[in-house]
Amino acid sequence: MPALQLHPDRLFPPDPATRQVARELYHSVRDLPILSPHGHVDPRWLAEDTPFTDPTSLLISPDHYVTRLLHASGVPLDELGVGAGAPLDEGAARKAWRTFCERWPVFRGTPVQYWFTVELAEIFGIHDRPDAANADILFDRITDALSTPEFRPRALFRRFGIEVLATTDDPADDLWSHRALRDDPGWDGRVIPTFRPDRYLEPGAAGWPAAVAALGAAADTDTGDYRGFLAALRRRRRDFAAHGATSADHSHADVATDPLDEPVAAEIFTRALRRAASEEEATALRRHLLFEMAAMSAEDGLVMTLHPGILRNHHGPTHERFGPDTGHDIPTGIELTRALRPLLERFGTAAGFHLVVFTTDETVFSRQLAPLAGFYPSVYIGAPWWFLDAPDAIGRWRSAVTETAGFSRTSGFIDDTRAFCSIPARHDMSRRLDAAHLADLVVRHRLAEDEAADTLRALVADNPRTVFKL
Amino acid sequence: MPALQLHPDRLFPPDPATRQVARELYHSVRDLPILSPHGHVDPRWLAEDTPFTDPTSLLISPDHYVTRLLHASGVPLDELGVGAGAPLDEGAARKAWRTFCERWPVFRGTPVQYWFTVELAEIFGIHDRPDAANADILFDRITDALSTPEFRPRALFRRFGIEVLATTDDPADDLWSHRALRDDPGWDGRVIPTFRPDRYLEPGAAGWPAAVAALGAAADTDTGDYRGFLAALRRRRRDFAAHGATSADHSHADVATDPLDEPVAAEIFTRALRRAASEEEATALRRHLLFEMAAMSAEDGLVMTLHPGILRNHHGPTHERFGPDTGHDIPTGIELTRALRPLLERFGTAAGFHLVVFTTDETVFSRQLAPLAGFYPSVYIGAPWWFLDAPDAIGRWRSAVTETAGFSRTSGFIDDTRAFCSIPARHDMSRRLDAAHLADLVVRHRLAEDEAADTLRALVADNPRTVFKL
Amino acid sequence: MPALQLHPDRLFPPDPATRQVARELYHSVRDLPILSPHGHVDPRWLAEDTPFTDPTSLLISPDHYVTRLLHASGVPLDELGVGAGAPLDEGAARKAWRTFCERWPVFRGTPVQYWFTVELAEIFGIHDRPDAANADILFDRITDALSTPEFRPRALFRRFGIEVLATTDDPADDLWSHRALRDDPGWDGRVIPTFRPDRYLEPGAAGWPAAVAALGAAADTDTGDYRGFLAALRRRRRDFAAHGATSADHSHADVATDPLDEPVAAEIFTRALRRAASEEEATALRRHLLFEMAAMSAEDGLVMTLHPGILRNHHGPTHERFGPDTGHDIPTGIELTRALRPLLERFGTAAGFHLVVFTTDETVFSRQLAPLAGFYPSVYIGAPWWFLDAPDAIGRWRSAVTETAGFSRTSGFIDDTRAFCSIPARHDMSRRLDAAHLADLVVRHRLAEDEAADTLRALVADNPRTVFKL
Repeated sequence: MPALQLHPDRLFPPDPATRQVARELYHSVRDLPILSPHGHVDPRWLAEDTPFTDPTSLLISPDHYVTRLLHASGVPLDELGVGAGAPLDEGAARKAWRTFCERWPVFRGTPVQYWFTVELAEIFGIHDRPDAANADILFDRITDALSTPEFRPRALFRRFGIEVLATTDDPADDLWSHRALRDDPGWDGRVIPTFRPDRYLEPGAAGWPAAVAALGAAADTDTGDYRGFLAALRRRRRDFAAHGATSADHSHADVATDPLDEPVAAEIFTRALRRAASEEEATALRRHLLFEMAAMSAEDGLVMTLHPGILRNHHGPTHERFGPDTGHDIPTGIELTRALRPLLERFGTAAGFHLVVFTTDETVFSRQLAPLAGFYPSVYIGAPWWFLDAPDAIGRWRSAVTETAGFSRTSGFIDDTRAFCSIPARHDMSRRLDAAHLADLVVRHRLAEDEAADTLRALVADNPRTVFKL
Repeated sequence: MPALQLHPDRLFPPDPATRQVARELYHSVRDLPILSPHGHVDPRWLAEDTPFTDPTSLLISPDHYVTRLLHASGVPLDELGVGAGAPLDEGAARKAWRTFCERWPVFRGTPVQYWFTVELAEIFGIHDRPDAANADILFDRITDALSTPEFRPRALFRRFGIEVLATTDDPADDLWSHRALRDDPGWDGRVIPTFRPDRYLEPGAAGWPAAVAALGAAADTDTGDYRGFLAALRRRRRDFAAHGATSADHSHADVATDPLDEPVAAEIFTRALRRAASEEEATALRRHLLFEMAAMSAEDGLVMTLHPGILRNHHGPTHERFGPDTGHDIPTGIELTRALRPLLERFGTAAGFHLVVFTTDETVFSRQLAPLAGFYPSVYIGAPWWFLDAPDAIGRWRSAVTETAGFSRTSGFIDDTRAFCSIPARHDMSRRLDAAHLADLVVRHRLAEDEAADTLRALVADNPRTVFKL
Repeated sequence: MPALQLHPDRLFPPDPATRQVARELYHSVRDLPILSPHGHVDPRWLAEDTPFTDPTSLLISPDHYVTRLLHASGVPLDELGVGAGAPLDEGAARKAWRTFCERWPVFRGTPVQYWFTVELAEIFGIHDRPDAANADILFDRITDALSTPEFRPRALFRRFGIEVLATTDDPADDLWSHRALRDDPGWDGRVIPTFRPDRYLEPGAAGWPAAVAALGAAADTDTGDYRGFLAALRRRRRDFAAHGATSADHSHADVATDPLDEPVAAEIFTRALRRAASEEEATALRRHLLFEMAAMSAEDGLVMTLHPGILRNHHGPTHERFGPDTGHDIPTGIELTRALRPLLERFGTAAGFHLVVFTTDETVFSRQLAPLAGFYPSVYIGAPWWFLDAPDAIGRWRSAVTETAGFSRTSGFIDDTRAFCSIPARHDMSRRLDAAHLADLVVRHRLAEDEAADTLRALVADNPRTVFKL
């Protein structure tokens, strides 16, 4: 039976001299605690500390990185438990796991296979390569492990060495889980919410009036007019901050931020609530509201993060049947220089304002993002995100941004994951890759070894703390 | 006299450990037969098996990769026999060859020089670097060789180890050459046509009404209205399939696929035939027709391939004098996510539908193409094409797409060439580069060596067969 | 105290075999004279040969590469002497230098740190890494050196081995400095102007009518109508050529070159002078004028260079306070294929016409620029420029363009710098990187070693001479 690869030198450059430098750099940060300032772990898992049940519901069904490529290879999403609302029953879960093991080769060369390998080996002690023959054995071993106290969510959180974990939360969320964790004397981990108001800022979207009403209810504020709406957002931001939030996250089709005059904004708002605004007006209001979010960030100090340029739910029939986040959100091109100009003219040099820009469009790395972050004290370059959170892409990113903006203008790694068990593997991967990148600079005599070590520690420990105000 | 480089380790990474892995991987696939599912070899060459006459008419005049860079270096195209309709006479052919040899240095670093080197050495046994001094000797040696039976087209086809060769053919073509080859008891090679209907799908182009009429004649169908036009296309697709075709190829300025209501399409069609459609209407009809091509592919099983984003015949004066395909087709940017959405919403998960997307716009590799192919079972990532079918570009492509889509969603290599003698060199180059890429993953401990070997065999032998239904 | 890195093998690849080849290649061109066909050194420095006073006014205040990243790290621009019109007084200059030394780590991984290291070591003999502790010592050492004859501008020019240095000059400039140098019997260096008419070609810009009048005055020609305006431009171009200019440089938002009928152009011109042209008309006239500039280049032989796609003065408040060129010019995306078509249809194959295209948009390298330069005898690929004039970016550029256009279609290195003392470091960096790139081709057996050596010499010595007609 072929063994899983888990070489101590994995991801390091092959050149022996470079590898030696990378190895030493990596070891100096390997055991530092994990700072996870942006991700999608469900805080209830930790608040309730309910045991996970089986590998399918833990590792496959909720992870669209995994299910999308299985779907491309011909597996229907329902067989994988996608969008089912509840875990598959044991028989179906076992079958889905078997499918995954059989199709292990479709993940060759992807970070999914890399993360899974590390998870299987380091969390579950499994060193056999998944395949049709061992699928059931692996299913049973993981299922058994998950029933033990050591594999409950809080135990894993501690074992992973997580110092802070940010979740992503709806402005109308009552933050019960975060309060429960905060008030639990038996829990000393730091789990903080993130304010994610996208659906309240899309006046053209189908559910927008209902969302505005729900926000009003959550904030105990009348959102029937524009002023009340802004007040409700402001209030919920304060509530989030009181629960530990340090950032607000935004993801729209573009990042245009042209402000409107207040009366114009107010009027479009009113018309949009009555579904009487045109598409152009709705877009104009959305861009204005993003500008307003920057204004609030400059005021209340929540770091503003942008994750733009994704066309969500590309395949209508799949969306209708399985819901969102089911593997067919597809990137588009984005533009930052013109789009962010109004925001940056106003807040770009404002004290304490932080704007972190993530992108799946690699073309803006050297052309727009690094030049912006290389001038504005507020702008930070977000670490590679989605589709790009993998070894080669991360290498391209460092290569594209460093020569203009150095290391200090980058955000530090974010895992952005729903796959709780992949968190240590992802952060470890990032440390290895940064070590490899710095080692390459060292052997090309572009950086001294002590500077490389200092830089690596900053990337792992200081940058995320500074940038995300942790 | 300097010798031509033809090192057994060419194109392998310099690191000794990586090179050793690459070497072993390459040797495991080096001698597998060539599958060429997309290219531009003239099928008459094989049907008639007429001897080639001289190196200029074989290797220079018809190959715009060669003539374009000579033109840039100051050589008029007429001196190279471009667009002449007939081979240059011996004196002019010899002069053109001499020009090429003298200007050999302008091809340094390009795949043209690489392919030529392999062709000269492996096909003609020539190991001297072309230059002014040896040009005439080389001309004579190649001319002499071409007059022998071993260098006739069919003999070379066999010697090259070609298992299947797809040509590119006009829907109005009578496919005489393919029939002649099929019916020839002395020939057992597989040469198949490809349905390439571009000029019938551009209602705004100058020659469109004449093309529609010609299609009607070829299909023995009245193409005077929209229904008849579709019927004629359907009929010719069936004829192509009956002659062995497995794919239909499409190249337009963009790949937008917004369908029109049938009455609207029919009306624009009628108006366009009378040259009374606006430019916008013609474009809308073209996009609708591309959608209809997908519908036909979903129905008749011909693989749909897209080669978009080229502005043809950039330099009007050259086009007027020398015709198309004379080296000044220049890429533009393309967009896939929005453009292909209508097509994919309808056919993206249809059983048996295959859509292979090639591009000369590298920016969509990681941003759009890999994410689409990583979700839709129908979408495959076309191998690097034109301007990108070279070592560094191929490396960038693998790096850009693999981490999202793995290896199984890629098409396998296509040579896309008019240069018959370059086919073995091109496929060998691809095998070497894939071996090099996989070796790099192995030494970075991202893939086990047995997985790399299995993957390489799949890329060479299985992927093209599966993707192109060979 | 940590020493500055200045390893003889800096920037060479780590693989020992490749490094050895790179080293040999580099040494064959290391000492060739510097050809600098495009840059921003102030010619008065050389004409007047006034001593530089201190490291801040020489190395920091005028160099937006340096000040921008300090600004991003939180340093106000006024503390760095930006846009002050005069050097900082000694106390402030010393403080600014101390700030720079303290913040040395923000430049890690950037070419600024690399260039500075080489300048400090090779020009000033300083081998200590700048930091808070040694800032004052370094300030004094550099200040002392600058007061000696060996460090006056002309002495440095000679010591740097500059054979030709092109400056960038306004069409209304009287070229006094260039004349003074030419007429000075004690000076034999070659310092030539470059015609840079941007502000005269933007009919929509605020100061345009005044600029047109100033041009008229400088050319002693009535620029009150379109014909006079063109005549004035033509006349000043002739004057520049008479002072040694070989090129005209253009930087606008895009490179569209659609010509207008002359009466239309003339009418918009007249209206624009009266501030009565619409934005669309002003843009159309600007594009037409760029076409006219190509016509003049085809006529008078000045090489046409394009540096498009930069949004100047992104942050209004900074621009108002500190003026232009203060670190917030941010790139946008550009398009070449369609934009340059009118120009190339008319002049693309004109004898003697040279068009060098520089870009900060990497996406057009393989997609548009290399294909254009690979066909048109007039088109050359500009070396990496601004944001891209750094080791990794230069590597990406060579990789992106060479496979389509080879080496002969590239411009040779330009330093494009205002930082006089960085000129040798920049050219040396380029030679090292080209040596590294060629060495990689050699060890991959894609190029013979003698071909690599010949190519490197061409890149350093022949290409700039040919392309820029030096």
